[in-house]
Amino acid sequence: MSIKTNPGNYFEDFRLGQEIVHAVPRTITEGDVALYIGLTGSRFALHSSDAFAQTIGYEQAPIDDLLLFHMVFGRTVADISLNAIANLGYAQCVFGAAVYPGDTILARSQVIGLKENSSRETGVVYVRSVGRNQMGDVVLDYVRWVMVRKRDKEAPAPETHVPDLIGHVPATELIIPDTLDMAEYDFALAGAPHCWEDYSKGERIDHVDGMTLEESDHMTATRLYQNNAKVHFNQHAESRGRFGKRLIYGGHIISLARALSCNGLANAFRILAFNGGRHVNPSFAGDTIYAWSEVLDVIELPGRADLGALRLRTVAAKDHSCADFPGPDAEGKYPATVVLDVDYTVLLPRRG
Amino acid sequence: MSIKTNPGNYFEDFRLGQEIVHAVPRTITEGDVALYIGLTGSRFALHSSDAFAQTIGYEQAPIDDLLLFHMVFGRTVADISLNAIANLGYAQCVFGAAVYPGDTILARSQVIGLKENSSRETGVVYVRSVGRNQMGDVVLDYVRWVMVRKRDKEAPAPETHVPDLIGHVPATELIIPDTLDMAEYDFALAGAPHCWEDYSKGERIDHVDGMTLEESDHMTATRLYQNNAKVHFNQHAESRGRFGKRLIYGGHIISLARALSCNGLANAFRILAFNGGRHVNPSFAGDTIYAWSEVLDVIELPGRADLGALRLRTVAAKDHSCADFPGPDAEGKYPATVVLDVDYTVLLPRRG
Amino acid sequence: MSIKTNPGNYFEDFRLGQEIVHAVPRTITEGDVALYIGLTGSRFALHSSDAFAQTIGYEQAPIDDLLLFHMVFGRTVADISLNAIANLGYAQCVFGAAVYPGDTILARSQVIGLKENSSRETGVVYVRSVGRNQMGDVVLDYVRWVMVRKRDKEAPAPETHVPDLIGHVPATELIIPDTLDMAEYDFALAGAPHCWEDYSKGERIDHVDGMTLEESDHMTATRLYQNNAKVHFNQHAESRGRFGKRLIYGGHIISLARALSCNGLANAFRILAFNGGRHVNPSFAGDTIYAWSEVLDVIELPGRADLGALRLRTVAAKDHSCADFPGPDAEGKYPATVVLDVDYTVLLPRRG
Repeated sequence: MSIKTNPGNYFEDFRLGQEIVHAVPRTITEGDVALYIGLTGSRFALHSSDAFAQTIGYEQAPIDDLLLFHMVFGRTVADISLNAIANLGYAQCVFGAAVYPGDTILARSQVIGLKENSSRETGVVYVRSVGRNQMGDVVLDYVRWVMVRKRDKEAPAPETHVPDLIGHVPATELIIPDTLDMAEYDFALAGAPHCWEDYSKGERIDHVDGMTLEESDHMTATRLYQNNAKVHFNQHAESRGRFGKRLIYGGHIISLARALSCNGLANAFRILAFNGGRHVNPSFAGDTIYAWSEVLDVIELPGRADLGALRLRTVAAKDHSCADFPGPDAEGKYPATVVLDVDYTVLLPRRG
Repeated sequence: MSIKTNPGNYFEDFRLGQEIVHAVPRTITEGDVALYIGLTGSRFALHSSDAFAQTIGYEQAPIDDLLLFHMVFGRTVADISLNAIANLGYAQCVFGAAVYPGDTILARSQVIGLKENSSRETGVVYVRSVGRNQMGDVVLDYVRWVMVRKRDKEAPAPETHVPDLIGHVPATELIIPDTLDMAEYDFALAGAPHCWEDYSKGERIDHVDGMTLEESDHMTATRLYQNNAKVHFNQHAESRGRFGKRLIYGGHIISLARALSCNGLANAFRILAFNGGRHVNPSFAGDTIYAWSEVLDVIELPGRADLGALRLRTVAAKDHSCADFPGPDAEGKYPATVVLDVDYTVLLPRRG
Repeated sequence: MSIKTNPGNYFEDFRLGQEIVHAVPRTITEGDVALYIGLTGSRFALHSSDAFAQTIGYEQAPIDDLLLFHMVFGRTVADISLNAIANLGYAQCVFGAAVYPGDTILARSQVIGLKENSSRETGVVYVRSVGRNQMGDVVLDYVRWVMVRKRDKEAPAPETHVPDLIGHVPATELIIPDTLDMAEYDFALAGAPHCWEDYSKGERIDHVDGMTLEESDHMTATRLYQNNAKVHFNQHAESRGRFGKRLIYGGHIISLARALSCNGLANAFRILAFNGGRHVNPSFAGDTIYAWSEVLDVIELPGRADLGALRLRTVAAKDHSCADFPGPDAEGKYPATVVLDVDYTVLLPRRG
């Protein structure tokens, strides 16, 4: 009689080069899409309307890029981060083929780096995770690294290998479907007149609105993604834990920041890449999330006169309006109100 | 570099006759329908079962009339009521073609009246909003008026124009699809034996049941409709606001009242029109909503021996059972427990 | 003018042999499925992926067995248990044809037993409820018995009839679709390597994880099932009731226990039968639910070398980790922390 429950992997269970097939393939449906809108309030026209999507070359409304991200991420948790202490970072996250309701997503990861910490009680695991649809097309490809507990402090340390990670995804690696056609892009229906040319490097946008977090909302979102990390769901255990309460899945904060950013970036219809991102403070039920963005770079896309990219930084804060653009101080230290700082690349129509 | 966020329109931004195309077309899906049932507990058979709907001449189960209303209304908020102080009323609201999952809704409004208030700080804007499906069929057509702030008190007042609004939608203006056929209408499956003939003018029905409001529920409903009015979502800001807490979208109260009314009006399968309605007090999370209805009129429909209409008044109260039919006093003043008083017209099968 | 609201049936309204057609047929959709995952966090691969389901012989992902159970149960409440004091038990619950999104469910019940209690104020009603899809195929068939109030204590008692109920559904009565084919069953995608042969009679599994209940979650689930039992929704009334708060639908606890049980029983992909079950204590918002299971029996299935069944007992506890397998004491008395004790039969792949 063997232990039937999943203890999760500990640091010493990972091997460099190891390939992991994640369980629970997921057919994403219109139900998931509705719930995603209900839980985030996202107002991007592309994900709201089949008709709008078809006018710019999609078969129908593709699912929100972050809904896809969370679905892929959710698959990986049981294998990668069940014993994680902290999600340290993301890099090289590229969005591939559009995902439509009805598509089935499968995720695999490869261990691309290992580094035991000096305490010998934990180590850092670097994984490259790839989500594919039922045709085998890559829909998401990203690296994350997490600090994972060791089961046994005395277990021998693996050879340290820290992968070379690029600082941001270059324009040549961004995936722009050939089928996209901006000729009929309707700015009025998208909700704002601003196209790629209207944004300038260094420009900062306060997204104005705030969204208060509820236990039910973040748990429902995280359950929808079948992300089973324990800290989000169990008040009985967490009441004796580090914070005394349930920790909100960081991805839900990214989703809220993206949804809020529609007010100011309504035409940034597609996330092409996440270049990096950090959850700099935890969020809890009752917190109100605000966000602001800065244009880090204005990027021409090879061969596309109708589309351009922006590299953005979006910062989310809790219980603090973003009118004053809160962020790290000169030493890089974040105030307690800032919860998220992500660097990502989005696609917009050009005036042409 | 221009301001990228939507400041909303102020009173002086509206022009009589102005046409507004609202952003974010929306494909309504089975996911929206499921969430609507989950958030309201609605039990009308027509919206629950494709088979039931087909027996009376629909292609499949049409979406709930109020889900449609909220979806159209949600489109209009960013343009009409982002700077509104109060939603003053509704009139001439007629439901048109049935909407099915998969249909994409687009909303437009025309400014049909303007009246600056004597304070010069606000004005009343009257708009006629029309929702259409992807074929261009009108699915909803209604007038609402809202009190909107002025950006600048000194801005010149427009010429006052208050539209003539009808007191209630006459029978000849109600839209009854030719395809409806009551021959196979199954009262047992609808949940009650009462047909049109069984209701009498002046009859009052206590809908008995109560539903307690939760922050997560009303916010999820309102986000689902992509209604981005700020007062519903931001506890951080509202804690310093008029009520110290988030205000519940009045439409959610209408939905709850309609869902509760199924107990007593189970065969009132279609809302044909809203003749008028007022949110007479605000509702908040923690309140329990009850409802009662009065039959204002029993209406024969031209050329239809199998269908009749009832003009109803439904009143919703909070933390107060409706067994005593709470409503306005002799001077028309409502007790603090009453939150809603709507006048609308519904369709029922006749005994034939 | 007749009373239009449903007063529910009282004990003296039921007649032995009576047939009841329950109202509100329901088309179950992908929206319901998404919400079910969002509210329970269920991670069974079969219900998550069309592709996974197709590899083992289903047309597409069938809906979760418990989602079906709640949908059928929800139909019956208005007729059977609106005036119930307690849901006393379940028996002989057999799951039939798989249900897919798009199927429409109809429920009927027959009164198969009646027994007035000695107080003369209540009686026990036994009903056999059958759910069918739009083709008339049986999808669920179960007996439950409830204690129902009498309207009038003096109403004459019916002749006592207590049906013979089997202790558990025998293997020969379990419904295993001929179309099932385990040749391509993918244990890695299901999330665990354990097949039928790996479980032993008497084996106990602590499902480890805990899920905290929120008012919004249990009400949304129960509304989704259109279960309109009053005690779940009305804080205003319940604040003066037995517990001072809303009681959680017992079926939601069964769903959470089943979802938690995926950690340890990931390959128990189908519930074949409920043999019995009791809600031994009430659950409320704020409680954290844990679960453990015991293998009561290991059952060979006639003519199937690729499939086997396990008879399981799953116990759920609140605010008490199940590492110590809490249950009844020697006299059969349950501690206050235990909320559920169910006996059911599940289907698993054999190593073959």
